[in-house]
Amino acid sequence: MTDVLNDLVAVLRQRRSASPESSYVARLHDGGINKILEKVGEEATETIIAAKDGDKAQAVRETADLWFHTMVMLDHLGASALDVLAELERRFGASGLDEKASRAGIGDS
Amino acid sequence: MTDVLNDLVAVLRQRRSASPESSYVARLHDGGINKILEKVGEEATETIIAAKDGDKAQAVRETADLWFHTMVMLDHLGASALDVLAELERRFGASGLDEKASRAGIGDS
Amino acid sequence: MTDVLNDLVAVLRQRRSASPESSYVARLHDGGINKILEKVGEEATETIIAAKDGDKAQAVRETADLWFHTMVMLDHLGASALDVLAELERRFGASGLDEKASRAGIGDS
Amino acid sequence: MTDVLNDLVAVLRQRRSASPESSYVARLHDGGINKILEKVGEEATETIIAAKDGDKAQAVRETADLWFHTMVMLDHLGASALDVLAELERRFGASGLDEKASRAGIGDS
Repeated sequence: MTDVLNDLVAVLRQRRSASPESSYVARLHDGGINKILEKVGEEATETIIAAKDGDKAQAVRETADLWFHTMVMLDHLGASALDVLAELERRFGASGLDEKASRAGIGDS
Repeated sequence: MTDVLNDLVAVLRQRRSASPESSYVARLHDGGINKILEKVGEEATETIIAAKDGDKAQAVRETADLWFHTMVMLDHLGASALDVLAELERRFGASGLDEKASRAGIGDS
Repeated sequence: MTDVLNDLVAVLRQRRSASPESSYVARLHDGGINKILEKVGEEATETIIAAKDGDKAQAVRETADLWFHTMVMLDHLGASALDVLAELERRFGASGLDEKASRAGIGDS
Repeated sequence: MTDVLNDLVAVLRQRRSASPESSYVARLHDGGINKILEKVGEEATETIIAAKDGDKAQAVRETADLWFHTMVMLDHLGASALDVLAELERRFGASGLDEKASRAGIGDS
């Protein structure tokens, strides 16, 4: 199931060089980092609103939108979701979640 | 690589019933949806700031924090990252990204 | 100068009962609290991006958009910018900023 | 009533040069624009959450926090709330709200 992220990383990379007319992803890159980050902020807001409504299906859809646009952002910077997964693996993979979370400082602002 | 999400979903579910004293995840659930969403908003902001700084490594770390806290939020609502992956698969899996994105209304505000 | 807020509170209240076709403010109220809060989140994001760009004039414009939409939100809830000013007065008015800020818990997350 | 903003602009300017040990405002400036913007993002999130809870008093308090931190941000960039009021005056002052809002593009994303 989670191979969808691998596939999506490949598709996002390919579409980056498409024409802005034919591709939403290309239009985002064409608009620059500010345009991409406006979408990240919008989708984060909509995720929060859906969660406050207790609307599980809508929260899933908005989180998908949010992850999608962070993936475009990472691609724009020369990184990808695979780096995010590696980071999560590094923190939570081997010896359990909270011990590593504690060392990694997760939860501190 | 992407199996880290499967593993993380399982760990998050398990830690939800741990004591708040011993587990950061349990503390988040104990604080309620508002506490969890405050973290989602914080991490979204920090992701945007890191991306504006063009700091690729920091953007990856902040995105990992953001995805992590959205996963706690989804678990709090009775959903999980697997639902997000299914939603992304549904949109982008078969016949290409932008065609489906267009039909799904991604990118519209 | 600051009487513009008094005037704007009055205008916002008046426009709330206008037809959505003729008034942007009426359309916001007609869309409900979610629609209004999506705009608050969007304008907060755009304010952050403008500030990161160091674009003083753009930061002022985006902050004006942000304050405007928080004022619509407050009106939707039955409050107004005058309550915000009273709250700021309560905290900072008499004996100086940081002393009161400390007591009011400003800066704590 | 609205003179509180004039007073607050003056106090914020004065405290900027205080020692970070004695002043919350000086600590914010000392932390740099990223620190200030993290607070703007946090307070925007908390405003949205309070509004979703329909908690009028809490929404007023969080909006006060949000406006306060945007004022520190503007001061950091060499602007102030007086510029925001001038911008709002320019848009809404003379001939009514929606006509000017339309021309100013408010409400467009």
